[in-house]
Amino acid sequence: MKPRVLILGGGFAGMFAAKELHRSLAGQVEIELINETNHFVFQPLLPEVAAGSITTRDAIAPLRLLLPGVKVRQASVFDVDVASKTVTIFQGLQRRYTQVSYDHLVLALGQVVDLSRFPGLSDHAFTMKNVSDAFRLRNHVIDKLEHADITQLPEVKKELLTFTVIGAGFSGIETVGEMKELIDRSLKFYPNIDPSEIRVVVVEFADRVLAELPESLASYAHKLLEKRGIEIKLKTGVARATGTSVTTSDGEVFGTRTIVATIGNAPSPLLQKVDIPKAHGRADVERTLRVRSTENIWSLGDCALIPMKDDAKDRKDFAPPTAQFAVREARLLARNIKATLEGSPLTPFDYKSKGALASLGGRRGVAEVFGMRLTGFSAWLLWRTYYLSFLPGFSTKLRVLLNWVSDSVLSRNTVQVKTQIQGGVSYVHYRAGDRIFERGNRADGFYTLVEGKVEQRIPGEDGKEIVRVLGPGDHFGERVLLGSGLRTGTVRALEDSKVLLLTAEDFLRLTDAFPALKAYFDDHVTRLTAATLKAPTPAASADAPAGNG
Amino acid sequence: MKPRVLILGGGFAGMFAAKELHRSLAGQVEIELINETNHFVFQPLLPEVAAGSITTRDAIAPLRLLLPGVKVRQASVFDVDVASKTVTIFQGLQRRYTQVSYDHLVLALGQVVDLSRFPGLSDHAFTMKNVSDAFRLRNHVIDKLEHADITQLPEVKKELLTFTVIGAGFSGIETVGEMKELIDRSLKFYPNIDPSEIRVVVVEFADRVLAELPESLASYAHKLLEKRGIEIKLKTGVARATGTSVTTSDGEVFGTRTIVATIGNAPSPLLQKVDIPKAHGRADVERTLRVRSTENIWSLGDCALIPMKDDAKDRKDFAPPTAQFAVREARLLARNIKATLEGSPLTPFDYKSKGALASLGGRRGVAEVFGMRLTGFSAWLLWRTYYLSFLPGFSTKLRVLLNWVSDSVLSRNTVQVKTQIQGGVSYVHYRAGDRIFERGNRADGFYTLVEGKVEQRIPGEDGKEIVRVLGPGDHFGERVLLGSGLRTGTVRALEDSKVLLLTAEDFLRLTDAFPALKAYFDDHVTRLTAATLKAPTPAASADAPAGNG
Repeated sequence: MKPRVLILGGGFAGMFAAKELHRSLAGQVEIELINETNHFVFQPLLPEVAAGSITTRDAIAPLRLLLPGVKVRQASVFDVDVASKTVTIFQGLQRRYTQVSYDHLVLALGQVVDLSRFPGLSDHAFTMKNVSDAFRLRNHVIDKLEHADITQLPEVKKELLTFTVIGAGFSGIETVGEMKELIDRSLKFYPNIDPSEIRVVVVEFADRVLAELPESLASYAHKLLEKRGIEIKLKTGVARATGTSVTTSDGEVFGTRTIVATIGNAPSPLLQKVDIPKAHGRADVERTLRVRSTENIWSLGDCALIPMKDDAKDRKDFAPPTAQFAVREARLLARNIKATLEGSPLTPFDYKSKGALASLGGRRGVAEVFGMRLTGFSAWLLWRTYYLSFLPGFSTKLRVLLNWVSDSVLSRNTVQVKTQIQGGVSYVHYRAGDRIFERGNRADGFYTLVEGKVEQRIPGEDGKEIVRVLGPGDHFGERVLLGSGLRTGTVRALEDSKVLLLTAEDFLRLTDAFPALKAYFDDHVTRLTAATLKAPTPAASADAPAGNG
Repeated sequence: MKPRVLILGGGFAGMFAAKELHRSLAGQVEIELINETNHFVFQPLLPEVAAGSITTRDAIAPLRLLLPGVKVRQASVFDVDVASKTVTIFQGLQRRYTQVSYDHLVLALGQVVDLSRFPGLSDHAFTMKNVSDAFRLRNHVIDKLEHADITQLPEVKKELLTFTVIGAGFSGIETVGEMKELIDRSLKFYPNIDPSEIRVVVVEFADRVLAELPESLASYAHKLLEKRGIEIKLKTGVARATGTSVTTSDGEVFGTRTIVATIGNAPSPLLQKVDIPKAHGRADVERTLRVRSTENIWSLGDCALIPMKDDAKDRKDFAPPTAQFAVREARLLARNIKATLEGSPLTPFDYKSKGALASLGGRRGVAEVFGMRLTGFSAWLLWRTYYLSFLPGFSTKLRVLLNWVSDSVLSRNTVQVKTQIQGGVSYVHYRAGDRIFERGNRADGFYTLVEGKVEQRIPGEDGKEIVRVLGPGDHFGERVLLGSGLRTGTVRALEDSKVLLLTAEDFLRLTDAFPALKAYFDDHVTRLTAATLKAPTPAASADAPAGNG
């Protein structure tokens, strides 16, 4: 039987590893690639998807199309057992697991986004990892414009028209540039929004934008973005986020209903479960890309810490997590696996970057290629051409080109495709003083306080207000069960708070089906209604059960 | 102040009503249109979106772009108060309501899909009402092909490769034709699927397809679809549906994991709340399109029952719910509102259809235009040209044309864009005998039985199996709380059953945040674990609390 090479991950690293392995070892080994989705995501194009200049399907390509001769499996990896050389996976939405064996294992798991260090950010920020993120962001931005065009409340309008990007690396800068262009080109449809009301902010912890590029190019990009009306806050971190605000590390609070986080890259949690040596959470590989102290496990791309010299210590001694390097690593990986099978010596990784490119939106870019520096339109054109050449498949190339051409000529479409309002359970964060809901609001769900403190005010029978203070574990908003549709009381956060929100529909389905819960709320609502009707004195009300809505 | 005309609904009827009103009354009245989304959906193109021959954004167009001079508001209507001439709306995701007044109200609310008469269908079938539906269907079909390509289980593969469309009217036939084409063109990427394994079925209650068309054309369509390998079941209704099967009215059960329902059109629930005369759930209008016994309320399109002669009785005496008629109605509506404002007499509705067109996918169609009958490629070309001419805006026209051309030349993209796995609470239906989950499966959620009866088998300590029978209100699967990740027992439906499923993540968040629930399950799981460890006799186990997983 032929040796089996199993690749986990279908990003730049995994996809090109499969391609290169097939090129040099087709017929001699069996190659299989396992990925969560059936397509390769061309991440550098996601900001363009978010801006609507290309469509979702042009930023992705089916792995099967890209990898003829390679077995592609769409599955999620549950466990890797190094001792028995097997990987346990779940295919699609199947609940039955499947075991896949290997002779050589290639870990190309990339990185994940971990925003848990920033309270509220993971619950309220968009990320730019996959094509759904980009698609949702685009619809979200248009939704904010729609809403801003009709709202009568100046404070709300200000929040709606403030768009925030966190992080000013490649992804952050391209996102903020494309987002600004989308907004600028859409404004003609919104007669009640004045261009001066738009605020687009990028927040960066470092002291400059585009740390990946030379100082002079970054400085050009900085000036150009500012000239286009983008506000850049350097040396500024994020302390917390809510659905309507960002608090910076300086303590500044600004209202915003759109937050895109391009920070927080973290090692893949799956990699942590694999029993191999790690360094800084990444696979600890030799310069040959073989994982230290193993014979048949390899790693490349963002999930591996790849030394580029023998006594690598400094950050710049290791391969940077870019597509350009991943493609080079893939080439070496195929060569070294071939050498291993043939018993020849392995080659160490060594590569010098040929340059860097960034799009700034609005047909401007910055580039450094083979030592040459380009700015403005020429850099942007180079960026497009480079990525077009990179795009896999003639159909995709042609379609992207057609889209780019038609986008230059035609007006941009501001259609908003609503993915249905998300059901289920979500966390929502509030700052001290925020109103969670008020009397007369649509009753949209059931709230349980997870952290913080809130104050609830309900009108009593005799016109006196009943005031309750709720803490973690207390709940409110369960009057949606009574079906009036509108809130009777007002709830405000007294401290920074985190609540668990269950949509009204889901809450009703759950209490309906589940007798223990139904009994609890029947009892609770009865007591509550009685308490409200009796219009208790403030002393009595303090003892009343916490929870109402 | 100018009289205010308020239009509710932005489909064919509402959009064209706004257009025609603006054309004939611009400057004399204020026109406002309120719609749930910011775009007009070109419904006849949704099957093409689902098949991937055009993209989502080409089947929709922004209402603001289509309606210059008309105020467009993206909002959901909460209530209409005829007495005070005000409409209460919620804008976007806002929870604060807004009141909008009118002098003339135009109800163009269309129809909704109501599948509640068919057990399981609303929880397991796709509909084809908006662009998200089409988008999700496309991704679902590709997901089934991905899964079928790798599964080892023949029974599962058969279910995965059976695609069912319910209803053989325009929408059903176009959907089944386009779906078949998508599958046929995708198969080359799935080496383990043989074309003979694909089964595409359309189920129709009537005794023929395309009841809207003359017999001879319908018969041509029928033969052509059969020739292309589509199975057509006439005189067959749907009795029930689950996630893996359809039961027909004949009692036949066939396995299928893709169900598209194009039946079940029902009057808009909002219309029922408006205090005006109704007939068969639709607005009861005079031939002038004015709602009977009102002065200033008008209705058109699918939500109105529009007589085309004075003593209308028969079905054919009323305007059919098609786009062609809606556009004509819109023209008359504008004329009659103008006449009302000027005090002139109103004109009754009268229109004869100019023909009908249907696409069958695979570049074939059927058409009857001005009495002429066309079939095959010429009918299909006419269909495309007709809809292209209909498409609003030059950009959209050009883009759709480019897409159609490139689709003829290039291979179709089988990329699957996963919208995240839906969280929250959903209903799942099972037939008697179905396995809900089995030992070793991934623990994907918490189940509460709503209807029916299930049997649970858990291995006891001494190797004996514990068997429990659960009924409505009982729950199982709560061991996800213990976090082992895999099921320890097996659950089967003893009767046709309906369960409420809460995803594992949401269940954990909820029990975590909500003390009453946490206490209940802590107690429950403790008792359960004790019971299992004691390995009770069958008699004892029958008394144990129902619920486990």
